[in-house]
Amino acid sequence: MSTLNLETATRLLAAGQEAAAEIGVPMSITIVDTAGSLIAFQRMDGGWLGSVDLSQRKAKTSALFPMPSSVLGEMSQPGGPIYGVENSNGGLVTFGGGLPLATADGTVLGAVGVSGGLVDQDVAVAEAVAKAL
Amino acid sequence: MSTLNLETATRLLAAGQEAAAEIGVPMSITIVDTAGSLIAFQRMDGGWLGSVDLSQRKAKTSALFPMPSSVLGEMSQPGGPIYGVENSNGGLVTFGGGLPLATADGTVLGAVGVSGGLVDQDVAVAEAVAKAL
Amino acid sequence: MSTLNLETATRLLAAGQEAAAEIGVPMSITIVDTAGSLIAFQRMDGGWLGSVDLSQRKAKTSALFPMPSSVLGEMSQPGGPIYGVENSNGGLVTFGGGLPLATADGTVLGAVGVSGGLVDQDVAVAEAVAKAL
Amino acid sequence: MSTLNLETATRLLAAGQEAAAEIGVPMSITIVDTAGSLIAFQRMDGGWLGSVDLSQRKAKTSALFPMPSSVLGEMSQPGGPIYGVENSNGGLVTFGGGLPLATADGTVLGAVGVSGGLVDQDVAVAEAVAKAL
Repeated sequence: MSTLNLETATRLLAAGQEAAAEIGVPMSITIVDTAGSLIAFQRMDGGWLGSVDLSQRKAKTSALFPMPSSVLGEMSQPGGPIYGVENSNGGLVTFGGGLPLATADGTVLGAVGVSGGLVDQDVAVAEAVAKAL
Repeated sequence: MSTLNLETATRLLAAGQEAAAEIGVPMSITIVDTAGSLIAFQRMDGGWLGSVDLSQRKAKTSALFPMPSSVLGEMSQPGGPIYGVENSNGGLVTFGGGLPLATADGTVLGAVGVSGGLVDQDVAVAEAVAKAL
Repeated sequence: MSTLNLETATRLLAAGQEAAAEIGVPMSITIVDTAGSLIAFQRMDGGWLGSVDLSQRKAKTSALFPMPSSVLGEMSQPGGPIYGVENSNGGLVTFGGGLPLATADGTVLGAVGVSGGLVDQDVAVAEAVAKAL
Repeated sequence: MSTLNLETATRLLAAGQEAAAEIGVPMSITIVDTAGSLIAFQRMDGGWLGSVDLSQRKAKTSALFPMPSSVLGEMSQPGGPIYGVENSNGGLVTFGGGLPLATADGTVLGAVGVSGGLVDQDVAVAEAVAKAL
């Protein structure tokens, strides 16, 4: 697989929804391509309205900088090497819940962003999505 | 039905995708609630990247002003009664492709926005989505 | 009277609400001071969500340029002397519904912005507010 | 009560104004619905102009994330789990003064945001508003 098409993105959303339902927290899940452009999105019933924007920014963050959004967060704390990076690119989100989507051989096809629960819950759902690829 | 849940929104996206496939144009389709907050979105393979934002703004426009986006467009031409309205609310899109989503008794549950083809094509797909409700 | 205090602004909102109720259209009504800063606001039950922003921008427009917002609209049509003025000051609204609030001797104390109906209806409610001062 | 109408919002503003007057600090008070859209607002005479925006952002914060704005503030400190969350959703305010408005059975109907005094004073007024529901 060399591109992330809508069929795959829809399958990834379903995997994320299943993982979120197991945790019991309604979440917003975003799938973007390598440029950070939206392919598919869904907000589960009852999910916080504020999670829509967060999930999209997490996905964008892990697309523009192909690494977990939390890694950027570690490096952007006060005194850190990229302090303030979240103000670039129209606004990044640098805590957990954003992950690159890569094939087994490491080719990055896009990114996922998840928001709606505690950060650990968001990360768990994002990992379920990444594994479903 | 009194709310627009994710299951319904997903069904509406499928109806839109089918209508777009019949026309043969890949489109971005957005479903929002009555406040304009995103419920579900998809961009079909090969769809213009610029259509992502357009479909979302069309949906927001028909949520915040529950009428076809094209009606606002007719009234906001130079010399028209609401010339320049598109500069409000963080940026509206006032040509065709945005429609309210209403039940048979007229209750508005949200809105759809479609972009990717000629305006007439976008409108046709939005109408297919609205009818599928 | 030389300032527009909250008590007066609240009275003006009530006058506007009464005028809107007579027309039978739920409206958003904004009262600002001479600097365009918000003093009081209300959205009547069932009013379009998009009217919140419009009413505030109309009020701001008639505060920053102490004239009816429609006068700016006439002058900012294509080919007009201030074409595009609506893009200044963070976004103006230049159709009817914004009016300065002035005392009998012409002293401007602030402005009102009304949105929610047809432009003529918005103007009628704004005029009722201005007269109540 | 299942919705927050203008009559209730106006009553809540009056309760907030009374609480602020007891403290002796003029405040800006904002009431929004569950989507963060403005229902009613007032700035008391002499209130800081900068408090208008703060009160609105606090209310939006507690609408989009239905919890006290201060809870988000605790979690978004440097090193905290959601450091930088205030950069999402068009700009949140994450110190005290925003509270969800919920019925006795826990149904969230909207949110209140208060600004104008010390944070503890803002919180006290927001609590008075929330209790008045």
